Amino acid sequence: MSRFFSARHASLDAYVPGEQPRDRSYIKLNTNESPFAPHPDVAAAVSGEAELLQLYSDPTAKVLTEKAAEVFGVSPAQVLMTNGSDEALNFAFWAFCDEQHPIAYPAISYGFYSVFAALHHIPAKEIPLRDDFSIDHKDYCGIGCHIVIANPNAPTGLTLSLDQIEDILRSNPEHLVIIDEAYVDFGGDSCIPLLSRYANLIVVGTFSKSRSMAGARLGFAIASEDIIADLNTIKYSTNPYNVNRMTAAAGIATLAHNDEAMAHCRTIMATRERVKAELRSLGFTVTDSRANFLFAAHPRVDGEQMYLALRERGILVRHFSTPSIASYNRITVGTDEQMDTLLAAVRDILQS
Amino acid sequence: MSRFFSARHASLDAYVPGEQPRDRSYIKLNTNESPFAPHPDVAAAVSGEAELLQLYSDPTAKVLTEKAAEVFGVSPAQVLMTNGSDEALNFAFWAFCDEQHPIAYPAISYGFYSVFAALHHIPAKEIPLRDDFSIDHKDYCGIGCHIVIANPNAPTGLTLSLDQIEDILRSNPEHLVIIDEAYVDFGGDSCIPLLSRYANLIVVGTFSKSRSMAGARLGFAIASEDIIADLNTIKYSTNPYNVNRMTAAAGIATLAHNDEAMAHCRTIMATRERVKAELRSLGFTVTDSRANFLFAAHPRVDGEQMYLALRERGILVRHFSTPSIASYNRITVGTDEQMDTLLAAVRDILQS
Repeated sequence: MSRFFSARHASLDAYVPGEQPRDRSYIKLNTNESPFAPHPDVAAAVSGEAELLQLYSDPTAKVLTEKAAEVFGVSPAQVLMTNGSDEALNFAFWAFCDEQHPIAYPAISYGFYSVFAALHHIPAKEIPLRDDFSIDHKDYCGIGCHIVIANPNAPTGLTLSLDQIEDILRSNPEHLVIIDEAYVDFGGDSCIPLLSRYANLIVVGTFSKSRSMAGARLGFAIASEDIIADLNTIKYSTNPYNVNRMTAAAGIATLAHNDEAMAHCRTIMATRERVKAELRSLGFTVTDSRANFLFAAHPRVDGEQMYLALRERGILVRHFSTPSIASYNRITVGTDEQMDTLLAAVRDILQS
Repeated sequence: MSRFFSARHASLDAYVPGEQPRDRSYIKLNTNESPFAPHPDVAAAVSGEAELLQLYSDPTAKVLTEKAAEVFGVSPAQVLMTNGSDEALNFAFWAFCDEQHPIAYPAISYGFYSVFAALHHIPAKEIPLRDDFSIDHKDYCGIGCHIVIANPNAPTGLTLSLDQIEDILRSNPEHLVIIDEAYVDFGGDSCIPLLSRYANLIVVGTFSKSRSMAGARLGFAIASEDIIADLNTIKYSTNPYNVNRMTAAAGIATLAHNDEAMAHCRTIMATRERVKAELRSLGFTVTDSRANFLFAAHPRVDGEQMYLALRERGILVRHFSTPSIASYNRITVGTDEQMDTLLAAVRDILQS
């Protein structure tokens, strides 16, 4: 830290991305990336843009926004395309929360919620999960502050039903409910259809996981036109050209083949169910994940020990040191072949 | 505005990008883009990355950072690559300024400085320019607060000398001096060599103008390792993957051909000098710009009137309504052919 760093950041504990070691080649099951490359049309679209890079991108991302609105069944004015869904979340925390307007979220969830709260000096109410890691939606009903919930939640993969989310929305009409749907395409139910009835709903999504675009940084927020206008005020006060030319082109090409991306999701879901059953048969406790990852603990092998043993065998999974989940690992669902390698490694570890 | 928008943004007046109209085809001389496409290797590099988009970018942008450090003659730990130089500026305002640590900048300069100050609730000291639009560097000597100066300044194109900047640095040892070198490659002197002697210097740069990458969003901050560590704390609290895969690849390919980019800058400078002389011969007052734009006013034609008359003729320039510069227009230096079209249009307007 330099002597110039502002004291207002004294309590800031920055987010730590999943490791990207370069010491050898790993099977990467630690950052919830898709095992599928984007559609071949993406490379062509991107390559065309590369010859026009001297020109700024369209700050309104008009073509991409319209295409996304069409795919998600909303109006373009209800959509803001962002530099990853992290930017959509950051803008929402920044626009609507402040020292007088706290935010509540599950105590075990995406690690960035607490970072954004600290960054923007927003009081945070961290609501414990049940013992089985599920969210008790009644904890949020009438809570009287803004709310962000990942649905499916991370790293548990567990979902709330739309009825439960409606209860939360209905009982908090004066506060926003942000539903982070980063993993929704792997078996959750999207809240987008609820937008026509609830002015206090913001749906956040990403192209990183289900659309194979983690490396391009593309996310979105969908909400009322007024809320999107507020998010745009923050965007135009930070990074008006937040979606660059190549990412916009990649997004348009990806949405043109949305059905194929969703078919890839179904493949991943089938692999997930198979591996879930196999891990359970090996004695693991595995949550009923509806995401592209599994969350698993073994009664005989500590979580960190399992993580390190897999790492030694060339497989990266994500371990969190938070005490209540330290016995678990979050394992991204890759290809069937990758998961067979994982299962073989797990059997080997359990036998040694 | 929604009823949820935080009152802390009440005074926020977001940045307005240069217009990007779609009603017809224009000669775009309004956003200081390069008329040269990036090197052909950029498209190849980007296209390769497009097939790996399912994987996150390296959050440390290691290869790009090392290449930039080599080109700029500093150590990699002194460099932070950012999503455009706007992000570098935003992070610097956010990291080091606060309600107790104001920032000073020229009253006429890049429009984003006042936006970042408002966004982060930083008291701003806007220092008037001299009547000839030059910056009096003595205004900043011993000022006792953080400083940001664009050098060359925008939209005037005027420069401070390195001696003058050293005076500012030396007389403010307890405060940061951010030198925004967005336009430095068009005839200014970079402050990067001063970094070894001044721990309070931050140099901000961009690939948008001189390296033909406006549409890719790539900028950087170069400073002491401690300062870069602080900027990284902000980065990892907002957008850890701020430089996406394609932009990183484009940046690496561009830096591999840095000499060609600098040759393009010299072409633009030659065009600028020619057009400057022609405009002066037509009666314009034109500042002695060292940037890739000209800043020009005509005694007989009001600035807005000239802007509108050029727009009617299919040429976009940038007009600012700020009273002290409302008689001027900022005209990006394009190709010789584009500038000949501009000059013909200007002659036409002056004769009508």
